[in-house]
Amino acid sequence: MALTVMKFGGTSVANVERLQKAADRIIKEKETGNQVIVVVSAMGKTTDSLVSMAREISSRPSKREMDVLLSTGEQVTIALLSMVLMERGYSAVSFTGWQAGIKTDAVHESARISSIDTSFIRPKLKEGRIVIVAGFQGVTEDGQITTLGRGGSDASAVALAGAFGARRCEIYTDVTGVFTTDPRYVAKARKLKEISYDEMLELAYLGAGVLHPRSVEYAKNSGIELVVRSSFSEEEGTVIKEEVAMEKARTVRGLAFEKNVTKVTLLGLPNHVNTVSRVFDALAAKHINVDVIVQNVLDEERTSLSFTIDRDVWDETLDVLRTHEKSLAFSQLVSESELAKISIVGSGMASNPGVAARMFHALSEKDIKVKMISTSEIKVSTIIDEKRLTEALETLHDVFRLAEEESVSL
Amino acid sequence: MALTVMKFGGTSVANVERLQKAADRIIKEKETGNQVIVVVSAMGKTTDSLVSMAREISSRPSKREMDVLLSTGEQVTIALLSMVLMERGYSAVSFTGWQAGIKTDAVHESARISSIDTSFIRPKLKEGRIVIVAGFQGVTEDGQITTLGRGGSDASAVALAGAFGARRCEIYTDVTGVFTTDPRYVAKARKLKEISYDEMLELAYLGAGVLHPRSVEYAKNSGIELVVRSSFSEEEGTVIKEEVAMEKARTVRGLAFEKNVTKVTLLGLPNHVNTVSRVFDALAAKHINVDVIVQNVLDEERTSLSFTIDRDVWDETLDVLRTHEKSLAFSQLVSESELAKISIVGSGMASNPGVAARMFHALSEKDIKVKMISTSEIKVSTIIDEKRLTEALETLHDVFRLAEEESVSL
Repeated sequence: MALTVMKFGGTSVANVERLQKAADRIIKEKETGNQVIVVVSAMGKTTDSLVSMAREISSRPSKREMDVLLSTGEQVTIALLSMVLMERGYSAVSFTGWQAGIKTDAVHESARISSIDTSFIRPKLKEGRIVIVAGFQGVTEDGQITTLGRGGSDASAVALAGAFGARRCEIYTDVTGVFTTDPRYVAKARKLKEISYDEMLELAYLGAGVLHPRSVEYAKNSGIELVVRSSFSEEEGTVIKEEVAMEKARTVRGLAFEKNVTKVTLLGLPNHVNTVSRVFDALAAKHINVDVIVQNVLDEERTSLSFTIDRDVWDETLDVLRTHEKSLAFSQLVSESELAKISIVGSGMASNPGVAARMFHALSEKDIKVKMISTSEIKVSTIIDEKRLTEALETLHDVFRLAEEESVSL
Repeated sequence: MALTVMKFGGTSVANVERLQKAADRIIKEKETGNQVIVVVSAMGKTTDSLVSMAREISSRPSKREMDVLLSTGEQVTIALLSMVLMERGYSAVSFTGWQAGIKTDAVHESARISSIDTSFIRPKLKEGRIVIVAGFQGVTEDGQITTLGRGGSDASAVALAGAFGARRCEIYTDVTGVFTTDPRYVAKARKLKEISYDEMLELAYLGAGVLHPRSVEYAKNSGIELVVRSSFSEEEGTVIKEEVAMEKARTVRGLAFEKNVTKVTLLGLPNHVNTVSRVFDALAAKHINVDVIVQNVLDEERTSLSFTIDRDVWDETLDVLRTHEKSLAFSQLVSESELAKISIVGSGMASNPGVAARMFHALSEKDIKVKMISTSEIKVSTIIDEKRLTEALETLHDVFRLAEEESVSL
């Protein structure tokens, strides 16, 4: 019998009225004759208010105890959603992470699922019951409660889909799908019918924010089709799956971007084999994430190194670099803030070498200066002035004809 | 090494400030060198608000799911209290019911603890850590979350004290101890230094409300000394333990009472061997609790039966009796409301036959009419007009010299 996994995020279960709406969806799916596993997040702002209680107590609360605390959020949702379904005449049964046999490693606050023992849920599905599972949480081999960190409920849903052999995992959220870019910036932004795992991964990493990259990766490896759709409208969502034929024709599928970018340049570094690694080791030791990196060798003795960071970690970054000033032996430190990263993403790009050139050409025609460039198989990222971001997004959205239906070939 | 179990109720952990106060107590106990297990309830009104969410969904929510829902309350408390203790430099570790190995039967919403597997907590105590356990909850053999019903956290505390061989279990609450009667009714009411398990049981059953009878019973069977004291003052509490010498001297130790009592009388019942059981079977089938029962055989054919119920179930009681009017075959139904039950309690009573007589005499001197009487080994209960309750309490408190120190012998 076919099995569907449906995941509802925090805004989709924020109150009893929304639980009723979610129940509508679940019942509709159940009535098709499929087995149904539902994965839910904590209701609305529950997690935030638990976190702020903990912060009131300690600036660095125990991670183990944070997991004990936060995991109550989804436990409340599973109980209430089960009650809603039962009240409407459907047999439902709830499972916490540990009850569902979701085993994780012992990294509190950002655990990874290591296995799922399906023997607890399986009999309930066979009895025809709707199974409601707490997302975001699991348990270690020795019985410690863990949470999965950001995007954890998506990860739970995809892992359950994999473990139970579901072909489809539906992610109900507060947006109607995956867009060519953020509609708040580009009015013409269009919802995509389909997108490949790899494209979605780039969009996710680059801040599209709909799905956590880890879940997309897992779905890709397990061949599970993901559907992102709104729990508030009947609109069809976006299907994320292996590349489809028509995608080949369209080189650029979407625009991702990030604001708050700061560029740091170290000048006059000694041109040693370990110069770059020493800089990034020092930053990594303080958990500072570096994004785009560009190195320029000036001559045999000296090199310069530029990288981007989030503006929020600029003070910390400066501390690290000043602390290691002697050992890193750079002659000058230059920084530039109020930058943005804009990226074009598309599987077809690899086989289409002119795409990057068209991007740079379009930006230069608008007199938008490109300050750094980074490329991968399926994306090209550039760093530009943040105040030119919207203009750049609109320009590129037009140039790559992203507003047009996908059947049109470039 | 000596072990102390300390239990903090909902008002004692209602917010972060109170958690800090509870931590003061716990740290003080830990600093004596004892091992410490702390049992906590849900914070303040948490349980009430969870219940009202469930009621918004269903008038009769699934008991299994209610347990999943409500058990989150204590889980929040254990995590936050552990954080408070850690922030103050003490090593603490939290346990949910299932993590603590608290096994129960499968009666959701009012489960009973069947066993405690001490192997999870024991090593943490040995490491010198303060162990914080969620009260009120457990888990069945097959992994279902259960709650213990009213007074459940007390039951958890006493059961843990028993399982870990603690000699003493301290119950921190919002009163300073057990009183001779309710100080809101009798200004001279005095806090008892000590009271026996049996006396406490009668006081608990009769509505003194400080401790659930089940916990007192368990403590009695396991020989665990209970201490009831306030978490808001340094005042010494009341010790509940096996009878002590001085108690023998004092026949009456306390006055219990209940309001909202309704008396129901069935007249002209056939005097058959199963008449009484048929009446109470019919009521029990609707979960109506009957308290005091008096039967009067009028002649060989006819009998009358009186019993008391809580006024809140009067409508339901009437329904049941009307429904079975034919089969029960009573000739008349008479009821009287606005009654109260007042009871004198004391272990010494059994060996002191004049005590009941003194009670009736004192009441009749005040012209307070006794409508029903019920007696046990260590208590005498009477039903009187509710509007005479305070007067009756004050009279009996004086007659039995309850305001005087316990070294005085009657």
